[in-house]
Amino acid sequence: MASSTGPELERLIQLLARLPGLGPRSARRAALHLIRKREALLAPLADAVRVVADRVVTCTACGNVDTSIPCAICQDPRRDPAVLIVVESVSDLWALERAAALNARYHVLGGVLSPLDGVGPDDLNLASLAERAADPAVAEVIIALNATVDGQTTAHFITDMLQHLPVKVTRLAHGVPVGGELDYLDEGTLVAAIRQRTTL
Amino acid sequence: MASSTGPELERLIQLLARLPGLGPRSARRAALHLIRKREALLAPLADAVRVVADRVVTCTACGNVDTSIPCAICQDPRRDPAVLIVVESVSDLWALERAAALNARYHVLGGVLSPLDGVGPDDLNLASLAERAADPAVAEVIIALNATVDGQTTAHFITDMLQHLPVKVTRLAHGVPVGGELDYLDEGTLVAAIRQRTTL
Repeated sequence: MASSTGPELERLIQLLARLPGLGPRSARRAALHLIRKREALLAPLADAVRVVADRVVTCTACGNVDTSIPCAICQDPRRDPAVLIVVESVSDLWALERAAALNARYHVLGGVLSPLDGVGPDDLNLASLAERAADPAVAEVIIALNATVDGQTTAHFITDMLQHLPVKVTRLAHGVPVGGELDYLDEGTLVAAIRQRTTL
Repeated sequence: MASSTGPELERLIQLLARLPGLGPRSARRAALHLIRKREALLAPLADAVRVVADRVVTCTACGNVDTSIPCAICQDPRRDPAVLIVVESVSDLWALERAAALNARYHVLGGVLSPLDGVGPDDLNLASLAERAADPAVAEVIIALNATVDGQTTAHFITDMLQHLPVKVTRLAHGVPVGGELDYLDEGTLVAAIRQRTTL
């Protein structure tokens, strides 16, 4: 490759190949696509990556990424100050924002407890969560972690950690996904859906 | 989304989503990955995209992309000036360079003839190919186009176009791919492989 692609292009391809979802081959395709769409895509992307590299920061309050500290969500006066939603990652925060189910603030843990991967309580933003939950304004902490073993372990750890506080700790409901077919669901989900059935 | 991700991040996600192989969801994952690997990936990518946007140009001689005109391959004195390899795209050029099968120069057509898609002879770099093939130094033109209907139509068009020149026009061999199993090959490939069988 080095003989046919110059070092500049080779470097771009190598960096693109490190993005999740792209490999060496698709990174080459992406690089060629960028060069073909020079005005429409390559130049704007150069600006956009530079702006994000220079300006995007992690919010020291909640762990969200934005161009200001505190982030736009933490600053938003319309958000309910009584509710904190605990999520594993910024992508989960974005998913909940897209669903627009709640108008509250978030707390990004930056992972979940995972003894096998060597992730302990000190590796997560748990101390700052305890601090924020101790704020008298906070009435409820909604734990919105993945329904995996590690996610549920972390949920229990947080419940224990916040037990001494006068704050209500809740978690997302388990059940049949909207649009889901019973035939394709695992037994655990069906049992949860039956146990937590609601009156019509 | 607009409320949770700032406009800078949103713009980066939108541009990444237009790369081949990435969609809206994987573009968000890629953007978050970039922010997480700020020093190792985001800042270098910002530089790399800027450098490519500023410096990479299309070679006016062969159609390759590089930082100089003529490109490194056209300038390389070790390349055989007697052989021209005709390819559809820069990615095909790169594929042949990786195979390192030939030490010759290239001519990138920028597509193949496709009446259905409205691609005619004037849309491809055919006039410049005729010009280069007319150079007395060129003894052979190897047509390395895809073995598709459009690729073969284009190969025939080029053969006709160069007929009056004292140049040998060849094409890549058809046959069993190295490592390929006969059971999985189509009849056309098997017929070609039998017709063009070689003595052991």
